Amino acid sequence: MTDLEAPLRRFEEALSELVQSDVLFIRLIHQDLVTAGGKRIRPRLVFLASRALGGAPFELELALAVELLHSATLLHDDLIDDAETRRGREAAFRKYGNAVSVLSGDFLLSRLLHVIAKTGRMELVERFAEVAKTLSEGEVLQFQVAALEDYSLENYERIITAKTAVLMALATEGPALLLGAESGVREALYRYGLLYGQAFQMRDDYLDLMGTPEVLGKPVGGDLREGKATLIPLLLMERYPEVREVLRRRAREAGDLERVRALARESGAAEEAVRRIRERAEAAAQALEALPPSPFREALRELALKEAERVR
Amino acid sequence: MTDLEAPLRRFEEALSELVQSDVLFIRLIHQDLVTAGGKRIRPRLVFLASRALGGAPFELELALAVELLHSATLLHDDLIDDAETRRGREAAFRKYGNAVSVLSGDFLLSRLLHVIAKTGRMELVERFAEVAKTLSEGEVLQFQVAALEDYSLENYERIITAKTAVLMALATEGPALLLGAESGVREALYRYGLLYGQAFQMRDDYLDLMGTPEVLGKPVGGDLREGKATLIPLLLMERYPEVREVLRRRAREAGDLERVRALARESGAAEEAVRRIRERAEAAAQALEALPPSPFREALRELALKEAERVR
Repeated sequence: MTDLEAPLRRFEEALSELVQSDVLFIRLIHQDLVTAGGKRIRPRLVFLASRALGGAPFELELALAVELLHSATLLHDDLIDDAETRRGREAAFRKYGNAVSVLSGDFLLSRLLHVIAKTGRMELVERFAEVAKTLSEGEVLQFQVAALEDYSLENYERIITAKTAVLMALATEGPALLLGAESGVREALYRYGLLYGQAFQMRDDYLDLMGTPEVLGKPVGGDLREGKATLIPLLLMERYPEVREVLRRRAREAGDLERVRALARESGAAEEAVRRIRERAEAAAQALEALPPSPFREALRELALKEAERVR
Repeated sequence: MTDLEAPLRRFEEALSELVQSDVLFIRLIHQDLVTAGGKRIRPRLVFLASRALGGAPFELELALAVELLHSATLLHDDLIDDAETRRGREAAFRKYGNAVSVLSGDFLLSRLLHVIAKTGRMELVERFAEVAKTLSEGEVLQFQVAALEDYSLENYERIITAKTAVLMALATEGPALLLGAESGVREALYRYGLLYGQAFQMRDDYLDLMGTPEVLGKPVGGDLREGKATLIPLLLMERYPEVREVLRRRAREAGDLERVRALARESGAAEEAVRRIRERAEAAAQALEALPPSPFREALRELALKEAERVR
């Protein structure tokens, strides 16, 4: 009933076409990253939200725009994360240099502009402007917090909201905007996307510390090594000042990572993180009550609730 | 008569306001680069073209958008150029890291989106999408040509057009678009901006090789050291295969730079470059004939013709 195979196939075709360029290095980067698949979580959110409202015009363009903004951020993020791999592949910039990575990201942003112009809806352009602003601010803030060791739960909330949740909120709010849906429905979908996005990022951060390299597709503890204070370290910090020291030294000493993992398990901080993720996911599911019942609403509900399970 | 002091002052105020952020590191970058002045050549082009047509609506927003795209490119370009200084200041990324530089550039792009949305003109959004696409392709192509040693005058034309001229063409065409001017006028202003932009970049490249550190505000020969084949080396290459070798080894050997400069003077290649810049500048001036005579048309004309003089 909620099979997205057909729209996702059209999505992949349209995406490949959209990122065509007669510049070889741009094609290579995009083959590598953009059109190499991925879970397409954001396009799925667009299609489910659209269908939960009976189908929105320009849902494909919206899905493309949301994914392009996400992909451009990944390309610009490669510089920061210094992650060995992303989606299990060699980070693009290692092959062709930082410059090509950043500029290929800019190319994607130009295509995003093209695809939202197609919808003819200036309000959507304005919403993308807001989200792109918040997103870049969130990314810089994350860097700033690590540099200034300005660790706090308040900053953490701000970062996960800005760098992940607002784009997901636009993915689910967007179809309501395009349909001109009543404000209650539009707000409910915005709220769903925001809460789902927060739960999603919290789970991501949880797994980065508590997961396995097999599940992650990259080494565990990357956030610690970049001085990023995520939920569990923040919960631990008050009782265990040593965790702050581990972050400060970017987990450089032998046993640092294992020590934080052990503390997380023993102190109950890991469990507390799971509880908070579930809370957020359930609030997301709750927000959907304002929508008419449908298999698509149900699929959105399940998507959110799954975030709380995936930490196991 | 063509005094731009008032609009340029409004421009500086509006720009400062537009790039406000409550993220400290973003403010620092922007103080450093965006609001630190610069010659504002692109906003000047917008204001002159607008006034040559009797004044276009949203000329300020257009000027801001054009400058934001240029500034974002500078920030993303810092990674590539590895220039010791830019506008005589320490390159922003050296202070706060590559990541902050790139993401602050993204922040500027989000403000660009915001400011063009204000005009309510979707055609302008579409034109910015095209120009941003071409611009990023031009920057990547420049990198690709250096990496693959794919030196040719054809690639050089493509690069200077894509990375510099198309944005200047939008700066001068934009007011005609916003006014709904007749197509002959719009095309003439596009053509002026394109030819002026090419002459401008050719002069920039000329000075990078033949200028002095005092005029440049940075060491001479930066393009050679980055393997960028600009006009003079390309003109020299056929007769002097050693110039290709200098580019290949990024001018690393003692005397490389001086040797190319001497060849440029002695062979007449420098003179030939000046001749080509003048040709382009004169063609730009010529394109303005389609506009009604006015002091602003005259100012645009003089601006172009000055490019040919500044190489001395």
